[in-house]
Amino acid sequence: MRLTTLNTGKPDGQLAVVSDDGARLLTSPDWPTLQGALEDWSRAETQLSALQARLCAGEGEALAPDQLLAPLPRAWQWLDGSAFRSHGELMERLFGTEPKPPERPLMYQGMSHAFIGPHADVVLPREEDGIDFEGEFGVITDFVPMGVSADEAMKHIRLVIQINDWSLRNLAGAEMKTGFGWVQAKPACSVAPFAVTPDTLGETWRDGRVHLPLVVDWNGKRFGAPSGSLMGFGFHELIAHAAATRDLCAGTIIGSGTISNPDYRDVGSTCIAERRAIEMLDEGAVRTGYVAFGDTVRMEALLPDGGLLFGAIDQRVVASARI
Amino acid sequence: MRLTTLNTGKPDGQLAVVSDDGARLLTSPDWPTLQGALEDWSRAETQLSALQARLCAGEGEALAPDQLLAPLPRAWQWLDGSAFRSHGELMERLFGTEPKPPERPLMYQGMSHAFIGPHADVVLPREEDGIDFEGEFGVITDFVPMGVSADEAMKHIRLVIQINDWSLRNLAGAEMKTGFGWVQAKPACSVAPFAVTPDTLGETWRDGRVHLPLVVDWNGKRFGAPSGSLMGFGFHELIAHAAATRDLCAGTIIGSGTISNPDYRDVGSTCIAERRAIEMLDEGAVRTGYVAFGDTVRMEALLPDGGLLFGAIDQRVVASARI
Repeated sequence: MRLTTLNTGKPDGQLAVVSDDGARLLTSPDWPTLQGALEDWSRAETQLSALQARLCAGEGEALAPDQLLAPLPRAWQWLDGSAFRSHGELMERLFGTEPKPPERPLMYQGMSHAFIGPHADVVLPREEDGIDFEGEFGVITDFVPMGVSADEAMKHIRLVIQINDWSLRNLAGAEMKTGFGWVQAKPACSVAPFAVTPDTLGETWRDGRVHLPLVVDWNGKRFGAPSGSLMGFGFHELIAHAAATRDLCAGTIIGSGTISNPDYRDVGSTCIAERRAIEMLDEGAVRTGYVAFGDTVRMEALLPDGGLLFGAIDQRVVASARI
Repeated sequence: MRLTTLNTGKPDGQLAVVSDDGARLLTSPDWPTLQGALEDWSRAETQLSALQARLCAGEGEALAPDQLLAPLPRAWQWLDGSAFRSHGELMERLFGTEPKPPERPLMYQGMSHAFIGPHADVVLPREEDGIDFEGEFGVITDFVPMGVSADEAMKHIRLVIQINDWSLRNLAGAEMKTGFGWVQAKPACSVAPFAVTPDTLGETWRDGRVHLPLVVDWNGKRFGAPSGSLMGFGFHELIAHAAATRDLCAGTIIGSGTISNPDYRDVGSTCIAERRAIEMLDEGAVRTGYVAFGDTVRMEALLPDGGLLFGAIDQRVVASARI
């Protein structure tokens, strides 16, 4: 099942179930928002699946891509991991930071009051901040009790999503050095239009990981397509880490961190910082600049048969008019 | 004006205006929640002030302290500063971390999907995590645009609150060393029952600071009463820091960080970690342990004439039944 949220002018939009080809949708007056559905998931899933069956039978109204918001346009909690070890190692070399212990997941709490829709402009104040994209997969949970085990946590993964975690690299180092994590360096993330139930991924959902490449294009040119399979921790382990001392509310989003593979010279990267680190290692100097205003970034993961999965994030970065 | 939120079983409770003595309240069907009021503050303030006038005239129903939640039982964004330099210096000595540059505010994004009411039990998994309290003042903003100046930010401070930012000290060091900030070490905060408009503070609200002591008692014994006046940055400056690269949604909570004064040997502390650091400095060894299950912590700030301000946080720490 594939869920999306339509722009109705309300902050949480209108939940809709989408046909397998992404062309049609159906809504239910009983489930106006995805947040509401996640708070009562077993009932919601049954009723939304019935809409899914009607879509399979050919019902539904036409879906217009420009009416789509992020599946959760805002969330009560967004916790982003950094679970790809090859990314971490490259970042440590680029920024000269200390190696992180591999036995514990890395995770920070990020801004969750606004997620940017897949085709909306990304409004940022300054190019000089070092604008970068970060391609990630993520999951959305229902309510998770404090102290959950990783095994139990797997059952709380209700939806899988695809994220662009925008980062301002020239602000990140100073914030990281404080130990307090990022505020200024991590503005709102973008999210692909469709949140999918794990069964939609078929065999490509295993061990709490998405075993598919995320294809990233920057200004229409292929930038990388590493696989989500090589997470050092699965999403179920990230959830257990997050829930060690707190309940997680329904609608908590957990991110994988920047997708990265050790054969980065072949598969490319999902963020510019990583490419810059590779250039530094290989050529002794950085060649690639960060994102300029007007640039476009596209990210999409497809099923092995080329079938639609999360849909594409495809958008432009623009200057804030105010600053 | 003094606002509170009543427990109605709904996640956001019911907003109420409280009389100056904290004994009576009035609600308005037009403003069911504080979040809703903050999203349309100028209209809300006018109408809620009319209730305040009726309370002054003796109207209202009796307020029962055990029906009070945190003023915002959940918020879309909680950003906590660490603006008291004497606290930072003591923590650096205790944990052996590097000194932080004083020219930039320190700030992390914290868990905001649940704030604990002033008299509810604080449920935590393990004493061994090093349970500590942290007395803070905070502010709640309406919508703040990205790039706001500190001067403009002052106008967006709509309410002032009093917070206990619970911390798990034995988990904090490892998380801080990653540079990613705290997830496990920072569970839900508690908040005093009344959120007050800045004018309620009179002359004790100046320069974006609360010029009053926060009185902290641990198991009925005075622990400290340092003043909020000595913030290295005012709340308006913390807001400008937070909004450098993002809009702040209405209902954003900004914290001062642990209240601390350089004459800590006289005025005491608002967290145990600071007292432990002082013991280490003065006596070469730590004498004071962290919070045990069953302990009570009380925090209250009063107006100079002894008048009610935010009300008291007064609650017990208990073990999670599950873990």
